[in-house]
Amino acid sequence: MSTNPATAARPIAIIGGTGPAGMGLALRWVRAGETVIIGSREQERAQQAAAAIQRRVGDQARISGMENSAACAAADILMLTVPFEGQASLLKRLKPAMTAGSILIDATVPLAAGVGGRASRTLGVWQGSAAQQAAELVPTEVSVVAAFHNLSADLLGGDNPLDCDVVVCSDDPDAAQLTRELAAKIPGVRPIDGGRLENARIVEQITALLVGLNIRHKGHSGIRITGLPPSAYR
Amino acid sequence: MSTNPATAARPIAIIGGTGPAGMGLALRWVRAGETVIIGSREQERAQQAAAAIQRRVGDQARISGMENSAACAAADILMLTVPFEGQASLLKRLKPAMTAGSILIDATVPLAAGVGGRASRTLGVWQGSAAQQAAELVPTEVSVVAAFHNLSADLLGGDNPLDCDVVVCSDDPDAAQLTRELAAKIPGVRPIDGGRLENARIVEQITALLVGLNIRHKGHSGIRITGLPPSAYR
Repeated sequence: MSTNPATAARPIAIIGGTGPAGMGLALRWVRAGETVIIGSREQERAQQAAAAIQRRVGDQARISGMENSAACAAADILMLTVPFEGQASLLKRLKPAMTAGSILIDATVPLAAGVGGRASRTLGVWQGSAAQQAAELVPTEVSVVAAFHNLSADLLGGDNPLDCDVVVCSDDPDAAQLTRELAAKIPGVRPIDGGRLENARIVEQITALLVGLNIRHKGHSGIRITGLPPSAYR
Repeated sequence: MSTNPATAARPIAIIGGTGPAGMGLALRWVRAGETVIIGSREQERAQQAAAAIQRRVGDQARISGMENSAACAAADILMLTVPFEGQASLLKRLKPAMTAGSILIDATVPLAAGVGGRASRTLGVWQGSAAQQAAELVPTEVSVVAAFHNLSADLLGGDNPLDCDVVVCSDDPDAAQLTRELAAKIPGVRPIDGGRLENARIVEQITALLVGLNIRHKGHSGIRITGLPPSAYR
């Protein structure tokens, strides 16, 4: 897996990053030497979250906390980790802060839990997927990538390698490649090119299946894609 | 994995079984000592398919070929391996031949290829999934189980162990358990209880994702579910 030294110099803003998924990604990327900005509705909360990761990783950690819009303006790699019910309104609000050429990596899953239903069921999204909804709401000069839906937030927040592949879907090949490189920085994760953004609808649904399996079997499930040549996992 | 000696005495009728998926399942089950009836629209074609498997497995193979309705009447474990576009009409036609207490295992995936679209996309099914459509079309005394969607037909038809889990969904726990036992008879397959039949919609969709990955990366992809305790895989 080739690592791109350029990414370490480009901060990753994790928008809505104080939840388990955002904190887990932040932890893993900061450990890998990436520069991370945790975004939150409240600057103070973001800074507290950043300080918690700093304490865990040590002085060399490059992490800070900002209010979401400020985080958005300070980075051109934006990782979105918010519940589906907050996704659209947040993106509308952040749109003016996004800089042209930015990449928005969306991990949103339209779980029915967002409207009081079950986390093992999904809502239908008019555009086909939460990621395609995101693509409609960002400036045209921002590329949307769907990825990281199927990683267990609990395991991300721990110290062990994960046992899960990350299927990356995007209509922008360069943005998809950068995202796969970021995925490969998480120990135990293999990135896979999942093709166009429209395929995100299936990857999002898989999360609901995994949530159901977690409830039924008491685990922290993930997926591995088997049967592909080594060239597929990069 | 406990094996149920009772299943070997109960024939499995593979309805629409002369295609790659049906032939692959037949091969694996006959090798495992199960009794299989290949069903086809034409009795002669079914018998030719059965003879081909007999030649491959040897004299001890318990396999025969029948017209679909006859196969249906002769067995109470029915495995359906037909393209989505043929599923509903076939089930309506077979309904009178199904005996009360039968189990219908449905592996149908509503691929858009069925209406001239892409095999990496799916059609929306009013009932939620092809399996739920099947459940509406069979007699009420027949239990529907959704399983085997994600196995590569090419690999099933080969001699090597597979590298794929089979997520089994059903509203009938006993039928689901019997199906998981049948799945465990295929080398390399781990069955997983996927909960209610409605969850089949996600498992069906995964096949479209795998088809897309196969096209993009030139492989025969499958899935493994990670992160669950051993008790989940049985």
